[in-house]
Amino acid sequence: MPSLIECVPNFSEGRRPEVIEEIVRAIGQIDGVTVLDHSRDVTHNRSVVTFAGNAEHVVRAATAAVGRALELIDMTQHTGAHPRIGSVDVIPFVPIGSTRLEECVDLARRFGEQIAKLFELPVYLYGEAAIRPDRRRLADVRRGQYEALKLELGVNPDREPDFGPARLHPRGGAVAVGARKPLIAFNVNLATADVAIAKRIAHAIRESSGGMPAVQAMGVLLENPREPRYAQVSMNLVDWERTGIPAVVHEIRRLAHDAGTEIDHCELIGLAPTAALLEVTADALGLRGFSPDQALELRLARDR
Amino acid sequence: MPSLIECVPNFSEGRRPEVIEEIVRAIGQIDGVTVLDHSRDVTHNRSVVTFAGNAEHVVRAATAAVGRALELIDMTQHTGAHPRIGSVDVIPFVPIGSTRLEECVDLARRFGEQIAKLFELPVYLYGEAAIRPDRRRLADVRRGQYEALKLELGVNPDREPDFGPARLHPRGGAVAVGARKPLIAFNVNLATADVAIAKRIAHAIRESSGGMPAVQAMGVLLENPREPRYAQVSMNLVDWERTGIPAVVHEIRRLAHDAGTEIDHCELIGLAPTAALLEVTADALGLRGFSPDQALELRLARDR
Repeated sequence: MPSLIECVPNFSEGRRPEVIEEIVRAIGQIDGVTVLDHSRDVTHNRSVVTFAGNAEHVVRAATAAVGRALELIDMTQHTGAHPRIGSVDVIPFVPIGSTRLEECVDLARRFGEQIAKLFELPVYLYGEAAIRPDRRRLADVRRGQYEALKLELGVNPDREPDFGPARLHPRGGAVAVGARKPLIAFNVNLATADVAIAKRIAHAIRESSGGMPAVQAMGVLLENPREPRYAQVSMNLVDWERTGIPAVVHEIRRLAHDAGTEIDHCELIGLAPTAALLEVTADALGLRGFSPDQALELRLARDR
Repeated sequence: MPSLIECVPNFSEGRRPEVIEEIVRAIGQIDGVTVLDHSRDVTHNRSVVTFAGNAEHVVRAATAAVGRALELIDMTQHTGAHPRIGSVDVIPFVPIGSTRLEECVDLARRFGEQIAKLFELPVYLYGEAAIRPDRRRLADVRRGQYEALKLELGVNPDREPDFGPARLHPRGGAVAVGARKPLIAFNVNLATADVAIAKRIAHAIRESSGGMPAVQAMGVLLENPREPRYAQVSMNLVDWERTGIPAVVHEIRRLAHDAGTEIDHCELIGLAPTAALLEVTADALGLRGFSPDQALELRLARDR
């Protein structure tokens, strides 16, 4: 089968729904592309669209999305809580199923070069697609945001884009294009309202404080008037093949038990790779000799 | 997306691998069809091929398979342990993903009529595709097997086929064509070699002795020289939407505990619908608000 790729562009517009609807329409009009999700945040003044298809179709849809965003979103007027450098701020490509991350790296670089030329837009390659090592982290690419880039582009050689002109696009600013592994947003709600326990557990498991590799975690208190209050361990698993759902759940269960509480229930936010969810099946049943290829639809997707 | 359908024809040949290879080749040559599995049993002198695709492609491949089987397998020469009425003995169509069982019923009837005409082959509709209620059970259709049909066809009006002539095909005999839900072959191995416990549990959970709906189960002793001996509860879940993996595992765990033992591990044989496996994920994590559509590849398969 042709390699399936997911694309998750972020746009600097979260207050005018009609603008995001137009961009989503431009993406969905491309044959062979499926729009999986889109969401909008008023405080951040930012939207995220998720779509998928094969490389050729995804590039066509992403190009259409950039074109519409440059027409409809004017960075000279933009304010919002979230860091950003352009109308379409960041465009990551993510492998699906048996697609390799390297294919997304190649695609991000080709796509970046192409839109830089087509729209005269400065393009920074980040994540796995970064060419300069100091651009792997998105936070470094976005340092000082749109306003700093406006002053430094063409002056500070360190801010020279990977593709495109050394000046901002008049309306659209600049864009970061990259490749990354799929990310799983997964929350564990504890049978307690003591948020200090969730914070301690989050601290113990997250990579940045010496915990489990490829785990980001924080402790928060969920307050929903119609429900009991739960202390929540809220996580991003940024490389589930290194640390997957079973490993974090076992560790949180152990730490919760030590703290005198237990897991009440869990939540999966948005989409996750099927194979990452089937790891839980195999773990829970102690399945011997199991392969995700035994899931009929996954097997068919691989072979077709 | 066009409806995906699985087809699992059984052939009365398990001793000449080259014959089955030719049939598999005939199936695999049809564009848009994926051969998922094939297996051969010498004692039963019988083979099973599993393939999938959309309705049109599956019909084309199944027709090619019948044609080859009629050329290559001569029922007048066949002996074997398994009940059978023809060279291609039984052809069930099974819905995949969001395909409805009714589509498979329609397809089985159209396909049955078509091959009856094309090959002058008597066709009996069974399972959900049965028109006569006394033909729902395959065992009833196959009563007395090939040898009895040879005597009764054209004489006993009860054996009149649903389509085709009231006489056996000179080489191929007759065929049963049907539709059924996907079947999950799932085994639970207990931490004991006491097969009496597995037999008691199997008796308690199987539908035929008043247990759980749509569960077939038996207790067997696994003897593998390189492993400990396990008493096994071996199951077919013939309608996982009525009784799925989590329900049988919880019940077996409870019964095993009552019998002073526990589940050691489980085995999934062959393929299973992804949604049936994700039920285990949701159950094990106590996932709130989960939908199988959150599995990326399933969601894409649905929308494309």
